[in-house]
Amino acid sequence: MSTGVRRRMGVEERRQQLIGVALELFSRRSPDEVSIDEIATAAGISRPLVYHYFPGKLSLYEAALQRASDDLAGRFVEPHEGPLGARLLRVMRRYFDFVDDHGPGFSALMRGGPAVGSSTTNALIDSVRQAAYEQIMAHLEVGEAPARLELVVRSWISLAESTALLWLDGRRIPRAELEVQLVHDFAALAAVSAAYDEETAAVLRRSLTGEPADSPFTDLVTRLLALAS
Amino acid sequence: MSTGVRRRMGVEERRQQLIGVALELFSRRSPDEVSIDEIATAAGISRPLVYHYFPGKLSLYEAALQRASDDLAGRFVEPHEGPLGARLLRVMRRYFDFVDDHGPGFSALMRGGPAVGSSTTNALIDSVRQAAYEQIMAHLEVGEAPARLELVVRSWISLAESTALLWLDGRRIPRAELEVQLVHDFAALAAVSAAYDEETAAVLRRSLTGEPADSPFTDLVTRLLALAS
Repeated sequence: MSTGVRRRMGVEERRQQLIGVALELFSRRSPDEVSIDEIATAAGISRPLVYHYFPGKLSLYEAALQRASDDLAGRFVEPHEGPLGARLLRVMRRYFDFVDDHGPGFSALMRGGPAVGSSTTNALIDSVRQAAYEQIMAHLEVGEAPARLELVVRSWISLAESTALLWLDGRRIPRAELEVQLVHDFAALAAVSAAYDEETAAVLRRSLTGEPADSPFTDLVTRLLALAS
Repeated sequence: MSTGVRRRMGVEERRQQLIGVALELFSRRSPDEVSIDEIATAAGISRPLVYHYFPGKLSLYEAALQRASDDLAGRFVEPHEGPLGARLLRVMRRYFDFVDDHGPGFSALMRGGPAVGSSTTNALIDSVRQAAYEQIMAHLEVGEAPARLELVVRSWISLAESTALLWLDGRRIPRAELEVQLVHDFAALAAVSAAYDEETAAVLRRSLTGEPADSPFTDLVTRLLALAS
């Protein structure tokens, strides 16, 4: 809404604008290559004014990362309707959308460069992993997770991370293929675990009840489940 | 060999002894909880003498990590004889031996705590991953790796890392079970990828030729390979 007059922003509004500008820059290049000067220029304000809102680059980076973390955690939220395979595929699509939008920043953060790591950034990474874990467990409709099922879900989340990082390094495989592959990887890892663990097998079987009989996911899981019996 | 006389160590010998003492301490607790004083006491020398050999805790930590990295990379070396599944299982056993011996230090490093991350430590972690990757690829007898096969092997290595980290967090599943499970996970991830990629399927089929017909690995891979055809 333009009135022709340059409106003065309130403190919180200015902070939010700066966070948005910083997130944009921190996403597109490795964060240690982004300077406060650049953020000031992109936001159309002076360097000292940036310091008025944030004591330094790290605090601005952490605020940007907080916003990105909330965004990413939100992408694991998916209605509990329809087949599990289709739900996971929609989650993976949104996950890769995020990775695509924040590529260089995501790589720098997850590879743990020295300019990036702090106890705050590590806590934010863990909070996203935990949110993703809880969302997936809710879809599996398990209250108290058995140790082996917890391992499957947590290692699958870490597999999604490493697959995304390897994808970003050259983008040699179409992302749509990797999104489907990760859904199948979930079934495969769960089935391997189910071969050792009746509790995991029972959860996996129950999760299948909503799958259409002709879906590739059902086909994969059915064949793999045969291993568990 | 004791002569009853306390022998004076040479410079390099003393450095190596200090690295050994430091590695022991850095392995058993989070590295930021280990002090130079403690290392000096454990080595039986004065604090200033430690600084004579290493400028500070970070350089001593990096030297200890270099030794641990060489050790871990060496555990992926396995004779090219006998069935692939049995080879991978021996590698996984040695991998978990390492993780077992260096638990708290391994966790702190891989979770990227602030006292731990530096460009040197990240380069060492990458060098171990690369060594592991090259060893596995050599077993698969592939020269120029197709992108999808590279992804399978690299993501499996990262799966082994995350499985080991989750195991260390409470040790609720016997490690022997996880060692076998990771070998089966390799087959499962390779088979899922093979479903999209004839090159990967061909490599996997060829790798099977040495497997005994009645091994669980053969059984698993055979069933999974059916998906690729």
